[in-house]
Amino acid sequence: MSTAAVALLTDFGYEDAYVGVMKAVMLAVDPALTFIDLTHNVPPQNLTSAGYLAATAWPWLPAGTVLLAVVDPGVGSARRELILEEGGKALVAPDNGLVTLLADRFPGARMHRADAAYLELLASRRPVGSTTFDGRDLFSPIAAELARGNRTVIDPEVIEPVGIEDFVVAPLSGSRLRCPVLHVDHFGNCITGISLELPAVRDVLAGGPLRSVLINPAAGRGGDRLPFRESFSAVEVGQPLAYWGSTGFLELALRNGSYAARSSLSAGSIIEAELNG
Amino acid sequence: MSTAAVALLTDFGYEDAYVGVMKAVMLAVDPALTFIDLTHNVPPQNLTSAGYLAATAWPWLPAGTVLLAVVDPGVGSARRELILEEGGKALVAPDNGLVTLLADRFPGARMHRADAAYLELLASRRPVGSTTFDGRDLFSPIAAELARGNRTVIDPEVIEPVGIEDFVVAPLSGSRLRCPVLHVDHFGNCITGISLELPAVRDVLAGGPLRSVLINPAAGRGGDRLPFRESFSAVEVGQPLAYWGSTGFLELALRNGSYAARSSLSAGSIIEAELNG
Amino acid sequence: MSTAAVALLTDFGYEDAYVGVMKAVMLAVDPALTFIDLTHNVPPQNLTSAGYLAATAWPWLPAGTVLLAVVDPGVGSARRELILEEGGKALVAPDNGLVTLLADRFPGARMHRADAAYLELLASRRPVGSTTFDGRDLFSPIAAELARGNRTVIDPEVIEPVGIEDFVVAPLSGSRLRCPVLHVDHFGNCITGISLELPAVRDVLAGGPLRSVLINPAAGRGGDRLPFRESFSAVEVGQPLAYWGSTGFLELALRNGSYAARSSLSAGSIIEAELNG
Repeated sequence: MSTAAVALLTDFGYEDAYVGVMKAVMLAVDPALTFIDLTHNVPPQNLTSAGYLAATAWPWLPAGTVLLAVVDPGVGSARRELILEEGGKALVAPDNGLVTLLADRFPGARMHRADAAYLELLASRRPVGSTTFDGRDLFSPIAAELARGNRTVIDPEVIEPVGIEDFVVAPLSGSRLRCPVLHVDHFGNCITGISLELPAVRDVLAGGPLRSVLINPAAGRGGDRLPFRESFSAVEVGQPLAYWGSTGFLELALRNGSYAARSSLSAGSIIEAELNG
Repeated sequence: MSTAAVALLTDFGYEDAYVGVMKAVMLAVDPALTFIDLTHNVPPQNLTSAGYLAATAWPWLPAGTVLLAVVDPGVGSARRELILEEGGKALVAPDNGLVTLLADRFPGARMHRADAAYLELLASRRPVGSTTFDGRDLFSPIAAELARGNRTVIDPEVIEPVGIEDFVVAPLSGSRLRCPVLHVDHFGNCITGISLELPAVRDVLAGGPLRSVLINPAAGRGGDRLPFRESFSAVEVGQPLAYWGSTGFLELALRNGSYAARSSLSAGSIIEAELNG
Repeated sequence: MSTAAVALLTDFGYEDAYVGVMKAVMLAVDPALTFIDLTHNVPPQNLTSAGYLAATAWPWLPAGTVLLAVVDPGVGSARRELILEEGGKALVAPDNGLVTLLADRFPGARMHRADAAYLELLASRRPVGSTTFDGRDLFSPIAAELARGNRTVIDPEVIEPVGIEDFVVAPLSGSRLRCPVLHVDHFGNCITGISLELPAVRDVLAGGPLRSVLINPAAGRGGDRLPFRESFSAVEVGQPLAYWGSTGFLELALRNGSYAARSSLSAGSIIEAELNG
């Protein structure tokens, strides 16, 4: 028994017993586990949002934590399982690109498959006829074993995971970037892929402070220009702003309103953004 | 103190402190309890959905777990409390039919009332004027005492619980069945009462594989015919399918869509289903 | 390490990793902490609802519990942090009026700032550029330190917290009161500020039992008259009623329906109520 934590990230929602059953399966392995629910409201099968949440929660997870991330458009198909290790922590997820941003931001991460003999054991325990709940039958037992310190469930060979393009920020010209909306939060704030670490952002900031962001300049009426501010209280209620969010990315918001509702942007939308445009 | 788990299942939602206060009441009894939230989004007062979730989560709960299920259309009326024991686990719930499916699937379950003297003690502690929150004032203390191993709160007499008809699957003719929708999940998948254990299902399968299900053949346009598939990836996006779900029941779904929205079915709806129709 | 509990109350919702990251920050301080989620669905920035939930959950929290309440319209502005101590429990929150009702109902509560040196330490650890997530960077570490028994993070000076008018019930004439809707629950029940302890309520009850409540008598059609009943089962489905709720306040409801939807009331709405009107 340990006091290790398992953090959970899924698109299973809050209407069913799916997540509770996964926790029950893990507590049967180790009754002393602690759970941290990141969210179960990832938009269904949205790997952009799931990848953003996993990558930005990661540095805050205590050493020893296992992050179990199940957003799995390919359940029942041939996609495989992935175990990532970095900084004394582990992630268990389908190998479908969910870890692309995390692996990019933590270059020391090592990726593996699960041990083949252990997977065979799990397959032999699967209820008859059930092929649709790998979160319960496959990923939860692996996560619980890792959390209690059993590393024999890892295949030692290092592998290259499936990568996806969802997180690419492409310079277009000057201070104009093509980038994804990574996530829309509870308040309707749109978190873009633009971070302080991007060379294009550094170039702009070398010339002076960020004053505004022009979103989709080629769209109707010349796009949407948002002033850059340090916090919400610097604009009037109902007015838009851009700011560096708590996860290090540029966010687009309305004070006391939903920029996502106003702009119809969602996780995975591609936008053009002109810094100081 | 123990490391026992209490699993919770309610229709209290996620907007209030009701569930948190129930956990606080239980932690005051035993600060080492672990909680497993199944869901608090059971459709209000829907015993079909609650009964399905309790019965299908049950086999996954570790020995020693207490399932506290509070979906209680009769709060404030004369309905009584129920304690069910099976396989080293216990369930605490109003005696209103919520356990009908669970008791049917686990014939070894024994049912009891709570101890009368303990109920009097709880009644004496109830805040003045409060008659509407038995989850806090009655069921939570019982669940916490059971979780920490105190069986004196159980009246030893075995009783017959209230039963309801919500879960009955009736053969109509040949391979046609009348059955309930037991639950609609987060993705809009409709879980029917049709399981592999039904004689009518076994008869059909004895004659060959399941190829399709015809839903409500007497409805407009001759009903809705869904192909039977092993997993979602076997049909195109937006297309319907039927499959054996992870809880052992036949589910009706749209790939990347909501069959509940398309069909207007909800937990408790009664449908006719013709296997291979 | 302890088995102390931290109860959480926020308006952060269930779509993001914000609450999970706060728990991760606290588990890094003490891996044995237990969490009690009150709710994360406080209406955005609604201090009336947050104040009601904090004050009414408070007496149920076990001794040693820390309530971490983050509803923070002023994040990034000059508002300060508050630590309240009462009955062997503590609350950590922005000093923005959230504790007004709690402090009113528990006159023995003592209020403090956080220790200045500790706040400087936390400021030095804040990620570069981040000014928008005090829940993670400021309030969570304070709550975790208090939960594990470290009282050096409290500034010993007793202070007067910011107070707000949201909870004031004003007698108008006779048995007519002006009062707030404190909260709307998951079922659409409207919890008013009218409690059994109010002198005006005692005066009315001294003259006989409560039979009805007339809401907004000056509104169209002479207002909405609700019969007073002990529980929902005393009225027909779809009919309105008023009753003493489980937190000691008068609630307005429809049996199997939403009084909030019918009346368009929400947390913070001001109503006039005439007892036995």
